[in-house]
This record gives sequence, structure tokens and C-alpha cells, in this order.
Amino acid sequence: MEDYLAALENELRALVVAPSRAYAPYYGMLKYHLGWTDAHFASIKTDTGKHIRPLLCLVSCETVGGAWQPALPVAAAIELAHNFSLIHDDIEDQGDERRGRAAVWKVWGLAQGLNAGDGMFVLARLAIDRLFQRGLDVRKCADISLVFDEATLALCQGQFLDLSFESRFDVTLAEYIQMIRGKTAALIAASTRIGAMLATDDPTLIDAFDRFGANIGLAFQITDDILGIWGDATVTGKSAATDILSKKKSLPAIIGLRHPQHGAALRAIYSQPSLTQDDVARVLALLDAVDARAQTQSQADEFRAAALGALDTTGIENRAMDRLREIADAMTRRVK
Amino acid sequence: MEDYLAALENELRALVVAPSRAYAPYYGMLKYHLGWTDAHFASIKTDTGKHIRPLLCLVSCETVGGAWQPALPVAAAIELAHNFSLIHDDIEDQGDERRGRAAVWKVWGLAQGLNAGDGMFVLARLAIDRLFQRGLDVRKCADISLVFDEATLALCQGQFLDLSFESRFDVTLAEYIQMIRGKTAALIAASTRIGAMLATDDPTLIDAFDRFGANIGLAFQITDDILGIWGDATVTGKSAATDILSKKKSLPAIIGLRHPQHGAALRAIYSQPSLTQDDVARVLALLDAVDARAQTQSQADEFRAAALGALDTTGIENRAMDRLREIADAMTRRVK
Repeated sequence: MEDYLAALENELRALVVAPSRAYAPYYGMLKYHLGWTDAHFASIKTDTGKHIRPLLCLVSCETVGGAWQPALPVAAAIELAHNFSLIHDDIEDQGDERRGRAAVWKVWGLAQGLNAGDGMFVLARLAIDRLFQRGLDVRKCADISLVFDEATLALCQGQFLDLSFESRFDVTLAEYIQMIRGKTAALIAASTRIGAMLATDDPTLIDAFDRFGANIGLAFQITDDILGIWGDATVTGKSAATDILSKKKSLPAIIGLRHPQHGAALRAIYSQPSLTQDDVARVLALLDAVDARAQTQSQADEFRAAALGALDTTGIENRAMDRLREIADAMTRRVK
Repeated sequence: MEDYLAALENELRALVVAPSRAYAPYYGMLKYHLGWTDAHFASIKTDTGKHIRPLLCLVSCETVGGAWQPALPVAAAIELAHNFSLIHDDIEDQGDERRGRAAVWKVWGLAQGLNAGDGMFVLARLAIDRLFQRGLDVRKCADISLVFDEATLALCQGQFLDLSFESRFDVTLAEYIQMIRGKTAALIAASTRIGAMLATDDPTLIDAFDRFGANIGLAFQITDDILGIWGDATVTGKSAATDILSKKKSLPAIIGLRHPQHGAALRAIYSQPSLTQDDVARVLALLDAVDARAQTQSQADEFRAAALGALDTTGIENRAMDRLREIADAMTRRVK
């Protein structure tokens, strides 16, 4: 995957450039968030994220069409859009850290942090505009622009649901799936859909890649939910049972909260303003009693199977298709 | 202007629509901000803003081409983008009120408010995508998309400068102009530029409308600065000398703070954590002593003359051109 990642980084670095000295600190905040600099804007090597979305975009394009390079502007746009949502999420969830470092808003304050997220989003849009400047058929540019904008709208809508769930104990499985379909799966589906769109006009093929992305996105988020409770803190880099401490309405919690026998006990614990380590142990025991982990895993497996099934319907077999399956594997069988 | 405003409202109302019941409260926040509903999502009649940007877009298009209807999606996009920036500005500036009502983030909290602003921005983008769906030449759609995205980037960059100025006393006139060129004038210039683009391919004509928008945008912001200090509180709806109380680095303040003789006294007052009514009176006296109001007004007049001069270079004379001059007048000779 080294070639893809190196080309993606070039594309990203060409997009996130201050137009003049006056704006250097503004772009500096974006570069800091992307893991390119420290808080004094000196270059560093640090965790820049997994780049799953842009990789899916590039490899989807390659799977269908042979060359992945034409997908670079979209891959970059999707990575920037993802990072826009992270900058704003950290403010909305009052998250102090991102990828092991202080979140942008913790370093430069809420106002500058919020406005930095806005800029990241506009740069994502400008990356989409690049497709036309690179000579892509202009009709296809317009179609891709629409898919991208609709995906970011779905992302905002999903975030709205997620925030709404904070004050509720009666979130249903269907509501949860609707939420992560927007918050997580929509941008991943746009990655694979647009990757395919760049290589073909065949709507059946494009739809198959959309279904692959949407379903692997759902499985990816549910896997994240499992790691948020049962992940190894030394590997994830987050505190143990982080999603219990923050009382997040992730899938295991929803299964527990709705359980006819043990739900009430769980709701009582989650009603407290903040949880102790004893509470965490009690929640873990209750989730165990309702078999939440196995049920959550089986939901993830179901979406993963649907994702791989969508790929199978294309009948395509090549080296890139193998890579796509490897990425799907890494997204759902990960430990961090 | 009734015809324009009614058509614009139709266009806006067709864009801000929840795709399903689950998202009704999300779109409700946007409708509340736009002045269509109260905080319980019941329809009301209230101040929906001046709609200057979309009017400039529609009338610019009409001035060049005869019909203004093709500009409706862009006019709506620009109005939504402006409102996105207002929702986020209110969070960044900790502004409790907007158009005489509680700001979105004060009603639904910071997290939901921030995310509502993001959604408003994406809806603006989707309005731009509509141009293509309405059958506009796809190459022109791509050009317009780029102008729109570049204007919103300039807006974010301008906001960065504005926030940076809060902690500085040495902001120069050139820096101030650069800031408002991004924060205020860029979106107004995009309004008039894109309006013209929709009616002509002539680059000289398009540039003239861009210069008109940019210069009238600068004059508009500087007029706002004057009203922020010397405006009649019973007319503006804001508290008297609101920009002094908030220690805003508007143009009169910058002129005062940099004054060789009286600057030090002003800097001493502005260094305090918060100002009393006595401080406000002292600031007003100091601004009077340095002739800040007349200097500020003369700067506004200069940009206004440049704006009208740009229109003159087009040689166009028609009813719409008269309207454009009327709007320019209203933007710079207003009392609220």
C-alpha cells in the first residue's frame, strides 16, 4: 500500500497550503491536525491516521479500471472531509485528545478550532473541484460532486442523531444503524462508489461498490464499538472501556440498555453524572450477562458478509480486488 | 424587490427539507435560524435577514442577461453559506443573540449548534449542485462551483484573521482590509461574479461585477463598523456602542489604537478584561479626538466609489442596473 499512501500524501500536501504568510498559522492548525507538524508548526513524524477511506477509493478505482491515479483528488477530498468531521467532533464531544496528541481546539481554543474545521471542509471541496481542472469529463465531475456533498450531509445528519442519543436510554437497533449509516458509513460508501465511478459508467457495478462501502462502513463502526469497550488499552491508545466511561450509546450499550431483565440496572448506572471504576466493572458484568459482545460481533459479521457479497456480485477478480478484501479484513478484524 | 425575495424564499424552502422524520429536529434548527420557525418548530414571521447577497446575485444576473431566474440556486447557496457562517460566528464570538432571538447554540447547545452550522454549509453546496440538475451548461457549473468554494475558503481565512486580531493592538489598516476582504467581501464578490457568469462568458464583464461586489462588500463592512459604534441602538437592535463593549477591532478602533498621540490611552482601556459605561464614554471621546469616524467614513466612501466605478465600466444601462445601484446605496447609507 506504500505507493498509494505516498501519492495520497503528495496530493494532500499540495492542497493544504497557505496562500500567503498571513494565513500560515491557519493552515498550520490544519497541518498539525493532519499529523504533519507539532503545535509550533515544526515538521514531525507522528500518527496521521489509518487513511482507510482514501485507500478504499483508490483501490476501488483500480479494481474496476486498472489505474488508481485519477482517483487521487477524490481520495484526498474524502480524507480531508473525514478530518473536518474529527476536528468538529472533538469540540462537540469535548474530546481533549486526537491520535495521542492534544486536539486542535485544546491547543488554539474553541473559536479557532471550530473555524479550522470549516477550512478543512472547504479544502475537501476544492479537492473535488480539482477533478475538473485535471481534465476529467465534466459531467462525471458534476455527478461526483453531488455524491460527495450528499455523503457529507448524511455525515452531519448522523452526527445529529448521535448527539441526540446522549440524552436517551431507549435508542433502538434500527435507530443506531441509521445513525452510523450517516456518521460513519456514508463517507466510506462515497469513497468506494466514487472510486468505481471514476473507472466505469456501469450503474450495476457502481451500485455494488456503494453497497460494499456502506456495509463495510457499518461493520467497521461496530468493530470500533467493540474495541471501545473490550479493546486492549495498551494497543488502542485509549483508556480501557473508554466508551463506558463516556456513557456512549454504542451498540453493546444499546443492547444492554434495552434488555428486559438487566436493562434497568444498566440505565440506573448510566443515569449517574459520572462513572467510577466500580461502575465500569458493573457495566462490564451486565454486558456480559446480556451477551452483548457476541451479539455485537454477530451484527458486525453480518454487515461484513454483505460487503464482501456485494464485491462478489461484480465478478471482478484481480490483484486490486484482493487488496480490497484485505482492507475489508483489516477494518473488521482489527485490534486498534 | 418583492418578486426576487418571494422566489428566493421558495428556493430556500425547497432546499432545507428533512429527508425523514428522524431528522426533523435537525432541519428544525436550520429553519429556526433562518427565521421560519420558533424554537418549538412552529411557523412564525420574524426577521429573516436582509438577503443582500442573494439579491445582488439575482440582480447582477439580470443586469447582464435579462432573466434572473437561472441564478436562484446560486442565490440560495450564497444565502445558506452566509447563514452557515453566522451560526458558527455566534459560537466563536459567544454571541447569545442573532436577529433579536436566541442564537442556535444558545437554544440547543454548542454541539448541536456547531453541527447545525455544518449542515447549513452542506445544503449550500447541494444548492450549487442543483445548477447542473437544472440543465445549466456543465462546464459553467464547474467554474461556478470553484468560485463558490474559493469564496467560502476566503471567508474562513478572513474569520481566522478576525479571531487573531482579538489579542492584538497593532493591527494595521492593510491587515484590517485583508481581513474584511475575506470575511465579508469574498462572498459578496462571489454573488455578483457568479450572477454575471450565469449571463455571459465575457471575462471583462465578469471581472467588473467581481470588482463591484468586492468593493461594495468592503464598503458594507466598514459601514457596519460605523454603526457598531455610532449606530442608533433603537434602530440597529444592538446595544449602544456594542463594538466598543466587545472591544472589537473594527476600523474606528484600529485607527484609534494606532494613533501616535491617543493610541496609548485607548490601548490601556482595551487592555482591561471588561469595560464599564464610563470606559465606553472615554473611548468615544478618544475616537472623536482622533477623528476616527470621518476617516472610517472616507474609507467606506472610497470603496463605494470604486464599486460604482466598476459598474460604470460595463457601459450597461437598464432597469436592473439601476436596482444594483440602489442596493449599493442601501448597503452603504443604511442606519441598521
